[in-house]
Order: sequence, then C-alpha cells, then structure tokens
Amino acid sequence: MTVLRGAGADVREDGVPRHAEIGTLELESGFRLPEVRLAYETWGVLAPDGSNAVLVEHALTGDTHVAAGRARPGAPEAQRRAAESGGWWDGLVGPGAAIDTDRYFVVCANIVGGCYGSTGPSTPAPAEVDPERRPWGSRFPLVTVRDSVHAEAALADALGIDAWRLVIGGSMGGARALEWAVTYPERVRACAVVAACAQSSAEQLAWGQAQNLAIRQDPDFRGGDYYDGPFPVTGLGLARRIAHITYRSADELHHRFGRTPQAEEQVIDTHPGGRGRYQVESYLDHQASKLAGRFDANSYLAVNETLMSHDVCRGRGTLEEALSVTSCEWLVAAVDSDRLYLPRESDVLAAALPGDVRRHTLTSPSGHDGFLIEAPQVGKLLVETVLARP
Amino acid sequence: MTVLRGAGADVREDGVPRHAEIGTLELESGFRLPEVRLAYETWGVLAPDGSNAVLVEHALTGDTHVAAGRARPGAPEAQRRAAESGGWWDGLVGPGAAIDTDRYFVVCANIVGGCYGSTGPSTPAPAEVDPERRPWGSRFPLVTVRDSVHAEAALADALGIDAWRLVIGGSMGGARALEWAVTYPERVRACAVVAACAQSSAEQLAWGQAQNLAIRQDPDFRGGDYYDGPFPVTGLGLARRIAHITYRSADELHHRFGRTPQAEEQVIDTHPGGRGRYQVESYLDHQASKLAGRFDANSYLAVNETLMSHDVCRGRGTLEEALSVTSCEWLVAAVDSDRLYLPRESDVLAAALPGDVRRHTLTSPSGHDGFLIEAPQVGKLLVETVLARP
Repeated sequence: MTVLRGAGADVREDGVPRHAEIGTLELESGFRLPEVRLAYETWGVLAPDGSNAVLVEHALTGDTHVAAGRARPGAPEAQRRAAESGGWWDGLVGPGAAIDTDRYFVVCANIVGGCYGSTGPSTPAPAEVDPERRPWGSRFPLVTVRDSVHAEAALADALGIDAWRLVIGGSMGGARALEWAVTYPERVRACAVVAACAQSSAEQLAWGQAQNLAIRQDPDFRGGDYYDGPFPVTGLGLARRIAHITYRSADELHHRFGRTPQAEEQVIDTHPGGRGRYQVESYLDHQASKLAGRFDANSYLAVNETLMSHDVCRGRGTLEEALSVTSCEWLVAAVDSDRLYLPRESDVLAAALPGDVRRHTLTSPSGHDGFLIEAPQVGKLLVETVLARP
Repeated sequence: MTVLRGAGADVREDGVPRHAEIGTLELESGFRLPEVRLAYETWGVLAPDGSNAVLVEHALTGDTHVAAGRARPGAPEAQRRAAESGGWWDGLVGPGAAIDTDRYFVVCANIVGGCYGSTGPSTPAPAEVDPERRPWGSRFPLVTVRDSVHAEAALADALGIDAWRLVIGGSMGGARALEWAVTYPERVRACAVVAACAQSSAEQLAWGQAQNLAIRQDPDFRGGDYYDGPFPVTGLGLARRIAHITYRSADELHHRFGRTPQAEEQVIDTHPGGRGRYQVESYLDHQASKLAGRFDANSYLAVNETLMSHDVCRGRGTLEEALSVTSCEWLVAAVDSDRLYLPRESDVLAAALPGDVRRHTLTSPSGHDGFLIEAPQVGKLLVETVLARP
C-alpha cells in the first residue's frame, strides 16, 4: 500500500484515486469479510501534528471525488483530466473554500460495498472464498453503517490520523459521520450531520424496500450473480427513479415540468404503451440511465441495505444514552424542503446531543438534494460553527 | 340489459352488481372502443322526477361496492353475502348517512378499463377485433378521465337520469367528478371533489411512471398479453407498494412501525437477501399481496394511465376558462396530511371555480387515504355544503 503522507510528499497531488488494504473486516453480523480494500482520495497536506484532517463521507451512490484536484505532473492525461474534473461537493471543498484544502488535509473514502474502488459485490472474491475468484455477487454480506466506519478507522490508522478535525457528510454520509462520532468519540473533534438522522425511519425503510425490490425483481438480476450476463439495468433504473423523486420536491417538479409533454411527443394517444412522455417522465428516464451507466446494481443494494441498517442506538440504549459518549462540536443541518430526511428528524438528533446544539437550516427549493446543491450554504454554516477560526 | 328503475321496482335491492351495455365509446384519441359494458351498483330508489340521483366515483383500484346493501330475498347466498358486505365508503353512504340511501338513489359504476365488471383489458375482445375473443390485453386503448365520463353519461341515459343531484369522488374519483361537472354542466347540480385536483401534477405523473414501469418490467407481463400464463404479480405488488407509501403519511408510518423488526425476524443478518424484515416492509408486503389478489395488472396500468391523463383544461384554455362553464354547487376538500394530492392543489381548484368556493379540510394523520378513512368528516362537510337541507 502506498500512502501519500502529505507532509512528506514532494509534490502535492489532490483528488487522485488511491487504495488501502485494511485486511479482514469483522462485521456486526459476525461475518468476517476478508481482504478489504478501501479506495480514497485526498486533498491538501496533512499537518505534522496530524491535527488538520477532515473526513468527508459520501452519500448513497457517491464516489471519492468530492472536489476537483490535480494529478502529479507527468501523470497520464486521463488521470490528469479525472483529477481536474469537478467533484460532487465543489464549492464546499477546495482551495479557499470552507473546507479549505490549503489548510486542511481532506480524505474521502468509498464505502465498503460501493463500486468506486472499495471492496464490494463486483470485486473478485478472494481465493479462500472462491478459487475461481468470481465477483462476490450474492455472497457479499450486509455491511452496516457501523461496519463501514470501522473500515474507515483502519484507513485513518493507515494514514496516520489519530483524530479527525472534522467528519462531515450529507444524507447517508451524515449517517456515517454521526456513527463515527459515537463509535470513536476520541477520534472526532467536530462532526457535521447534514440532511441525515439518527436512525433510518419507517419512511426511509419503505422507500428502501421498494428500491431493493425494483432491482431484485429484474430477471437479469439472477439473485445477484449476473456478472457473466446482462446487467439488471432496468431494475436499477426504476430504483433510481423512485429514489430520485424522494430526493427532490413536488414543488420543484411542478415548476420545472408541470405536465408538459416532452418536445413533440403525443401524451394522449390511442395506446398507453405507445404514447409520448411527459417531461417529468423523460427527466426521470434520464436520471435512471445516468445511474445505470455509472453504478453497479449489487452495490446499489449493498449501500441501500447499509443505509437501512442505520441506527446509532442499536445496542446502545436510548438516543440520549447512545449520544452521551460524544464529546465533539456539532453542526446539525436540514434542508427545509427535504421530504425524505425531515427537518424534524434533525431536530430530534440535535435535541438528544449533549450540550446545547441547535438545528440549522439549508434553504432550498430542491428537497433532499439541496444538501449537494446548496454547498455554499453548508460551507457558511461550517465556518459559523465547527470550523470557526479563533 | 336489465335496469332496475328504483321507483318502478317491486323490491328494493341495494349494492348488487348490474351491467349496462353502452355500445361503442369514442375516445379522445380517436380510437373507437366497441361493445363497452359498464358494471354498476345502486342503492335506494330513483324519485319519479329523477331529482335524487347521486353518482359516487371510485378511486384508482376501487370497485362499485360503495356501501353495504341487500340482495333480493331468495337471491343466492353468495350474492346476499356480497351485497351485505361492507363497502369502501360505508359511513358516508347508507340509510341515515350523509348520502342517505333512504333519500337518494346512489349509483357507482366501475370505470372503463377496470376489472370489476366494466370493459377492461381482461375482457374478451369483440369478435370484430379478435375472432378468437382473447382478452384485449396490450390492445386495450388509453382511456382518459374525460372518456370515462362520457361512458358514464351513457349509463345515466340508460338509467333515466337527466341530471345528478350530486357527483362525488375522492382521489381519481374526484378527478372524475370534476370532469363530469365540466363536460356536462347541465347534468350536475352539485359536485364534491375530495383529495383531488384539476390536473395530475408532475409529482403524480412521476409516481405514476414508476408504478407503470414496475408492472411493465415484470417478465410475466409480456407486453400485456399474459392471460394464458402467470400473472405479473410481483410487478403489480411493487407498483402497489410505491403507491401505498404515497397514500399514507411519513408520520403515520413512523408511529405505527418505526424501525421495529417484524416479530422475531433478524434484520441485521449476514446477508441482505436472507435478513428478516422491518415491520413496515411486512406491512407493505401485505398491501402488495392484497392488491395482487384482487386486481388485474393491465387494469392497474389502464386506470393509472387514465389518472395520468387527468387535465380538466385540455382543449379548454386556462383553468378559469375551463371551469367557467360549470354552474353547480361545490364541495372542494383536501386531507391536511395528504402528500400526493396537496391541499394547495385543492386551493388552486377552489380559487378557479366560478363564485366564492372555499377549500375545506379533512383532518387525518393518514395522508391521502384519509379521504376513505375519514368518511364521516366527508359526510359532515357534504351536509354543511351541497347537501344542506332547506
């Protein structure tokens, strides 16, 4: 394993995929997942005392490319272009941004079970599991949010980071950040939980189930062992449509699309199967095919199951009891128009945290996705709270 | 065709399925649907002057059995039991209820495209379409809300009803009621539109598409021509799960289920495929299998497409212009916790109606389904508004 220790590196290299082998991961279920690899990217330089490390946790289908970076001079053109391409939280992370990569050493790891370089269902199983080294597929275990945090603690060890200056995430990333602060209170100085809650709710479980079924009912899914045949892209696409509607707001859909037909398409036709589409259908078709082109269906199931497992209280008593071990500073923020992670769930979390933590608000017409879209608002709140300069 | 003219019948017979043959239905698309039959039930006795007829319009997967009734003495036991079984709007319709079947002659017809006795995709196609008289299946056309109202006008003709004292419906039933008042203003004295809107919104279209795809992507669907093989029950079940979540409220799901596991089931297990279920998943499984046991997937698509077509303005100008032809009394009511048919959409409708129409509220924790659950509240509003006794 090659670790770029920022302070010791000759040339700063940001936003470039790296890997860490963290060995066997013991899961909450008792399953031992062997030969786990975590993919991650970094930005900035780790301070000699290790005090400036920030962990950014991605959401459900997110990857490690939080922000644009730069490859080492002389790196292959494709790698340079990938490093320089925009990230999913540009505007929050970068030189001069709230999470200032000239000041902080920023790390973002792909979650275990994902398909952006970390061990997941599409990874060849180790020889001890499968001598033919076929992908894990249906054999990939259930990884809880807590399990994923244990894996990231091993990454922190490998990077020489004893404690994070800040762990931050939105949506499932917020669940991961919260679980960090509770599982490793001594390793988290500040924690920002954005558009996330303490436990996945009945509502979130309900939508999670619908998405899982959309994939599992695709005949190409074949129980999860489809890598030698066509991929279950129609099921994955339907899962994404369902999820995407919950990520936006009815108001936004109304104002953007109303019930306008797509281009010249004829929505009142003799047969439903042949009719044209409404704009909102075309929009969701686009979201579906975009995801199906970049994400593995088994990984979608895996991370969705991870999210459904989210319960910071499991085995820890009441919410207040579970949170009582924490000792960090907090930013708890909700998107005002979020219908999937309701602001009142953030209220519940803030109220249960030790000390006097208030719930902050991101103002957005876009629903849950506001946590991504309104990155500058997240940055402003960070600077006003947990990243306040002395 | 046998029509029970209430006033002329020797014995009053309520809540018993009947049929009317209304011939060819000319659809908005230009398609001519031949040999259309409408199933309907009636309660009460039509006044000699025909002034007491009430049309109740069912919702998406509703049937004609609005309320308990009674079969003719001597009728077969099964028919007696069916007639006496509870209806979906008991408490609103019946002897002494707001829609008092001792006073009104109540009619409820199954929508064209449904599977409760009216012509739909599972109906054998006429010989002119298919000499083998196989079910319509994929050949069944798109029927708009307006088309369905045209069909019901033919039923009204057959029943000798020139004008309805009241047309009432909730959800898609409300869309049908509204379309009646606009298409046949001279035939509607009062109209009650409950938990419904003037045009299916982008949000409703988005969820509609997801439900359609859930069915169409089921391999057993076979383009809609599945009647000689297994039925696409898993796809239909998923469509229902999606719909059902939108019919309830997040609050209700939270208070009823939280994230409690079902009975002794183990939700954190080694593999997602084998894990136990959360209660809310079990609940949705139950809703799915209940619907799959009583409804035809092609009919689900047909009525869902009908609902998606709903636009009282199509070809009629602005909403105000479209509604300007109406001359009836109105009850417009929304469920306060409805997240699918938003109260503000009812506001838009009420504001655009001629005269001074206010939007009323049903108070319910249950979301959209409140229009069914809170039947007594609907009755109270009716009596306070359009059914007020002199």
